[in-house]
Amino acid sequence: MGRWEPNARGRLAEAALQLYSEHGYEQTTVAEIARRAGLTERTFFRHYADKREVLFGGSDELRERFVQAVTDAPPSAAPIDVLAAALDAASGLFTERRAHARRRQAVIVANAELLERELIKLSSLSAALADTLRRRGVAEPAASLTAEAGVAVFKVGFERWIADAETREMAQVMRETLDELKAVTAGG
Amino acid sequence: MGRWEPNARGRLAEAALQLYSEHGYEQTTVAEIARRAGLTERTFFRHYADKREVLFGGSDELRERFVQAVTDAPPSAAPIDVLAAALDAASGLFTERRAHARRRQAVIVANAELLERELIKLSSLSAALADTLRRRGVAEPAASLTAEAGVAVFKVGFERWIADAETREMAQVMRETLDELKAVTAGG
Repeated sequence: MGRWEPNARGRLAEAALQLYSEHGYEQTTVAEIARRAGLTERTFFRHYADKREVLFGGSDELRERFVQAVTDAPPSAAPIDVLAAALDAASGLFTERRAHARRRQAVIVANAELLERELIKLSSLSAALADTLRRRGVAEPAASLTAEAGVAVFKVGFERWIADAETREMAQVMRETLDELKAVTAGG
Repeated sequence: MGRWEPNARGRLAEAALQLYSEHGYEQTTVAEIARRAGLTERTFFRHYADKREVLFGGSDELRERFVQAVTDAPPSAAPIDVLAAALDAASGLFTERRAHARRRQAVIVANAELLERELIKLSSLSAALADTLRRRGVAEPAASLTAEAGVAVFKVGFERWIADAETREMAQVMRETLDELKAVTAGG
């Protein structure tokens, strides 16, 4: 990327989110997103495959954050504690991002195609987590179940974190949500 | 449906699965499915919206089975025990269906579009479960977490049940998988 397009990726993502919020996802074109960002369509396509992917530019980083935390956990840690550490690490990505997350979620839930893409993102996250847990020596089905539990907590915790009245940090909401899952499965 | 087309819906589903297994999902047309079933395209479209939906004809019944079991559970039952009963009830749908389930799964995992549709099915199941639990008076986030845990157990348990060497009944595999989830979340 040339120096004449500083943070083109972030500017395109912000412009897209603005336009999707203002006019709807369906009604917005790549040309409009590029114009709003002060960039060309060509630059858009250097960063994103299409107008859907611009909303999922952080998926790889999120997955990497989870995977790295699972990899870095002490060898003796139980899978559920590894998961807790990973949720904590992933929450760090969202610091100061709650307003953005709320706007993004409002766009996503209004469109079936985007909701599908979100499901694929979470499924890919679960697969990566299970794979990383297996590489730590966690057997099946514990690895897959821990991964699915992690994505469940992330999904439910995320919705709580972006709720209107919520002011606590994401890491705290995730810890509480994981504790709630433990209580539920313990029959509490 | 006329009496001259007995079990048209089931015949179309079986014909579609045969063709998808033989020639691939992409390569198969609705006309070929109808011909294999000895029916017309018009009849196909009376039963299914498109060639993708023919693989998901049982989704509503599965969701209904889960929801009915949750609704019917004793008012005093803890959410996790309600979930166990629902997994048991849902397993009843798959009696004598393992060979079919294996063939279907082989088609699904070979195609990204079908995998997406499967994710939507499971997401819709989770939403219905959470909704039914809330109507039983289960608070949030327990309702959503129980529902997500249920879908996680169903998904992982289903994969175990269709594994090559597996011979146990689905209900038993689901019970064991739920127990494994409890062990994982308890830190075991």
